[in-house]
Amino acid sequence: MNMLQGLAVASLVISGRCCFAQSDTGSTDSLLLSWNEGPSKAAITGFVQRVTKMGGNDFIPVPARIAVFDNDGTLWTEQPMYNQLAFALDRVKDMAPQHPEWNTREPFKSIVAGDLKKALSGGEQTAAELLAATHTGMTTEDFERIVQEWIASAKHPRYQRPYTECVYQPMIELLSYLRAHGFKTYIVSGGGIEFMRPWTEKVYGIPPEQVVGSRGKLRFEMRGERSVIIKLPEIDLVDDHAGKPVGIQQLIGRRPIAAFGNSDGDLEMLQWTTSGDGPRFGLIVHHTDAEREWAYDRQSHVGHLDKALDAATTRGWTVVDMKRDWKRVFPFDKP
Amino acid sequence: MNMLQGLAVASLVISGRCCFAQSDTGSTDSLLLSWNEGPSKAAITGFVQRVTKMGGNDFIPVPARIAVFDNDGTLWTEQPMYNQLAFALDRVKDMAPQHPEWNTREPFKSIVAGDLKKALSGGEQTAAELLAATHTGMTTEDFERIVQEWIASAKHPRYQRPYTECVYQPMIELLSYLRAHGFKTYIVSGGGIEFMRPWTEKVYGIPPEQVVGSRGKLRFEMRGERSVIIKLPEIDLVDDHAGKPVGIQQLIGRRPIAAFGNSDGDLEMLQWTTSGDGPRFGLIVHHTDAEREWAYDRQSHVGHLDKALDAATTRGWTVVDMKRDWKRVFPFDKP
Repeated sequence: MNMLQGLAVASLVISGRCCFAQSDTGSTDSLLLSWNEGPSKAAITGFVQRVTKMGGNDFIPVPARIAVFDNDGTLWTEQPMYNQLAFALDRVKDMAPQHPEWNTREPFKSIVAGDLKKALSGGEQTAAELLAATHTGMTTEDFERIVQEWIASAKHPRYQRPYTECVYQPMIELLSYLRAHGFKTYIVSGGGIEFMRPWTEKVYGIPPEQVVGSRGKLRFEMRGERSVIIKLPEIDLVDDHAGKPVGIQQLIGRRPIAAFGNSDGDLEMLQWTTSGDGPRFGLIVHHTDAEREWAYDRQSHVGHLDKALDAATTRGWTVVDMKRDWKRVFPFDKP
Repeated sequence: MNMLQGLAVASLVISGRCCFAQSDTGSTDSLLLSWNEGPSKAAITGFVQRVTKMGGNDFIPVPARIAVFDNDGTLWTEQPMYNQLAFALDRVKDMAPQHPEWNTREPFKSIVAGDLKKALSGGEQTAAELLAATHTGMTTEDFERIVQEWIASAKHPRYQRPYTECVYQPMIELLSYLRAHGFKTYIVSGGGIEFMRPWTEKVYGIPPEQVVGSRGKLRFEMRGERSVIIKLPEIDLVDDHAGKPVGIQQLIGRRPIAAFGNSDGDLEMLQWTTSGDGPRFGLIVHHTDAEREWAYDRQSHVGHLDKALDAATTRGWTVVDMKRDWKRVFPFDKP
């Protein structure tokens, strides 16, 4: 592309949104450097070309170009366990000295002892207790600080790098590519909304107000002249499965035209997105690369992908074969 | 301003957001045409100048420039009754032929008979029944259509014009002015989120995803190959008083730097906004103009303004005197 085109694309990507993006896919294909040529890349660029072609039958105006992305397993790795669970476990270890009562109480006792299997054997009740102890009872601003400190220092157990580097380079490029074509990009994740917002702008170019996630109830409180919002231990929305379209409607209020996921938890979001009128796009990241990342689908309990994989065939969603379609998985991989 | 400046401002206003807006208040003062010179206008432009001055002590980067506006009584008229209540009453009259059981049931019986006082004498229970009957039990898309049809045809009883013309011209200009300086403008209203979203983009330049409001619970549902979201009769959030900071945190996830309201229902939003660190701005529209609009505050039950008016003095919020500060109230007024 020439210099002027380059500048235009750069400024669009930086601003996060443009208001005049027309079909010009040729000059921005360079944003998809880590994608191999093939059916997945062709499906993406073909869709974007169709909906951005001024005067075309499938043209969609900029304000309606809403794209929603799952986070765990779609934008960053979710193996060997959800990163937010690693955060909760680290929090328990950090907080344990102030909680002598945890010495005799599960799941805390086993977490501190390093017996993860036993700690997590209690099912949903245990998970709720773990979440309440580590994610609630403080102000939203205190929690934000805690997350920022953790994300700046914690390392992924396999790659020994910050979690924010264990993100999928081709998906980061896809986010930029869509924004360069006038799309507004959102995260719609089963993960905690307050756990993601402190770092998504820096890592994905997605500001806090474009993050939808699971959330607990909140309470506003005056403390003298200051005001705070307290995180309460009751669930307000589980933004997973049928909760995803609900979260989208609550926070965005428009039906997206493109959705990107990787597991059955994304099925309803994909259905909601692709069964609207006009051109729609659905995509599933299929983890097929045990060498560079992980290979899992129907049998996995992390990122379980079964019904949504079947639905992809009948509904014409694009299935990304990580091994085949991605030149590199992580930013630190050699291309 | 010269042509290039003009074009730049115009494109910023159209795009709804800019990413490089610096202090240049002189060239955009023309956006505040309907404001008389005086302390209110000076407070607004002074604040915007301070936070947009590159290199200044009070400079705030564009992504943090979040401004929140109440709707009823702040952006459009809320007298003689909330416009959404007028909508609900019209709905009852429209729906009555399909509901013979309403002939003997309050508040429906009195609404159809035109006895509004009796209809609304039942308090909260009645209001909840009215809301459930007129706002729930259909899909979000059906409700959107109903609102669009009503807003296109209904007329305000005093001005005999569409409700969307009974908006405050100086506040419309203020929204544009803030956006021209890199602010992202949000509505945060006690009114129903799904009642506002169908028309706020056209009327205020505020897209659906920047509207926060009261909301009911939702349920996602597949209907054959199609998918819908159903509006349920249970309340999910009352976005008023202490619910406003909660709604802001849920949907925006950042503490705003400027808040605009007109009643005690906005008090907590103003407190949440202005007690953050760094420069903050709070403003209350005081209805002082019975001739062009209405005059009301401490004694009114619509737009009750009492505690927030006292707080304005102690906390240094700007109080707009409608009669003194506004050259015209509505777009249709002679300037």
